[in-house]
Amino acid sequence: MTETLDTRSWRGVHVELLRRIQTKEWLPGAPIPNEADLAIEFGCARTTVNRAMRELAEAGLIDRKRRAGTRVALNPVSRVVLDIPIIRLEVEQRNASWRYTLLERAVCPAPVAISSRLGLDRETAMLHLSGLHFADNKPFLHEDRWINLSAVPGVERVDFSAISANEWLLQNARFTHGDITFSAEVAGESRAGLLSADPAAAIFVVDRITWDQGQAITSVRLSYAPGYDLHSKI
Amino acid sequence: MTETLDTRSWRGVHVELLRRIQTKEWLPGAPIPNEADLAIEFGCARTTVNRAMRELAEAGLIDRKRRAGTRVALNPVSRVVLDIPIIRLEVEQRNASWRYTLLERAVCPAPVAISSRLGLDRETAMLHLSGLHFADNKPFLHEDRWINLSAVPGVERVDFSAISANEWLLQNARFTHGDITFSAEVAGESRAGLLSADPAAAIFVVDRITWDQGQAITSVRLSYAPGYDLHSKI
Repeated sequence: MTETLDTRSWRGVHVELLRRIQTKEWLPGAPIPNEADLAIEFGCARTTVNRAMRELAEAGLIDRKRRAGTRVALNPVSRVVLDIPIIRLEVEQRNASWRYTLLERAVCPAPVAISSRLGLDRETAMLHLSGLHFADNKPFLHEDRWINLSAVPGVERVDFSAISANEWLLQNARFTHGDITFSAEVAGESRAGLLSADPAAAIFVVDRITWDQGQAITSVRLSYAPGYDLHSKI
Repeated sequence: MTETLDTRSWRGVHVELLRRIQTKEWLPGAPIPNEADLAIEFGCARTTVNRAMRELAEAGLIDRKRRAGTRVALNPVSRVVLDIPIIRLEVEQRNASWRYTLLERAVCPAPVAISSRLGLDRETAMLHLSGLHFADNKPFLHEDRWINLSAVPGVERVDFSAISANEWLLQNARFTHGDITFSAEVAGESRAGLLSADPAAAIFVVDRITWDQGQAITSVRLSYAPGYDLHSKI
């Protein structure tokens, strides 16, 4: 342990525990001394050790199991935290001006691939919205969205030419959890037309389903114009 | 507040604070009462309120600013946590058997786009490894990697036909942070050949650079075979 490290703070303890794991002083899969013993060694409170341990667990570097105790992770993962803002902000963060155009609005049954994933009857009428987000007047992404009318009271009366569904839902619908999928697809003729892109271009696609407890709120597919990338720190 | 909620536990406090935010009882941008007052209201310790608040902050639902205090987030983000395992496990988690073939190994200068991003002199010799990961004997992804020899002692003597660089580095090199980028690209002739894919197919690409403090460890590009998607819970 370096002399300058202050192990009375959780950050100091965290640095020292991290060092032991990275230098293999504590080997992958090996049990970690218990918190009480480490607190004595570091001359700190047990809650301080616990805070540092939580940081390591959240980073995937240690495994905490109820019976087996805490061990150095055998197979550490790279944990990536993506903060996905509303699309308007995503555009503005790229120093571009944002605008949105509603292309289509309809109340009708969704394709069965969507209604079944949402756990809805295939005849259930949903609100379908198709729109384009622009960055500096160039197409940025196409938003293709289905909204469960019975889960979002009042949504049928909203003027989605004045506010994007992306923004309205985040402000007005409550949700508890969701699923997100990232993939790559060839643009194809119709999407290429919307995005002013080459039909042969590769497109970054985000599919997202949002739930409020057991009730589906919305399913959305975002097709980004060619050249988009999603960046994050690890 | 529901009668059954135990606000002496941080989880109980968390549920109640979440409810106030989601029902707009606390409006977006509005200041949140201070922790001491909330602790009195809930009849719990101040650290309990603090723990619940940290959970909300980590989910992007509240903004904590040093001077302005804590407020309900004006623009909540969707926070996605991706756990990216080593590639062998990623394949095995898909119930497929994994194998790895080293295609190329060389010590030579990297393309300037890579050496400059790593902050290395353009003449610096690096270890270049190109290899294929298979799932059930079908190409799963192509790994194209450059390793900074001076940052990873002994790496030149490792037999990378016996262990993938992805796995060896995670077990043997220390790193503090990294950058990751997800994008979509058309496969093109040479990559299509490696992945047994259509040259016109869309490919999901992950670029990752890993650092140990200020020193670059490795730069890697993973090109997934067509049809791959990256899935996560929100």
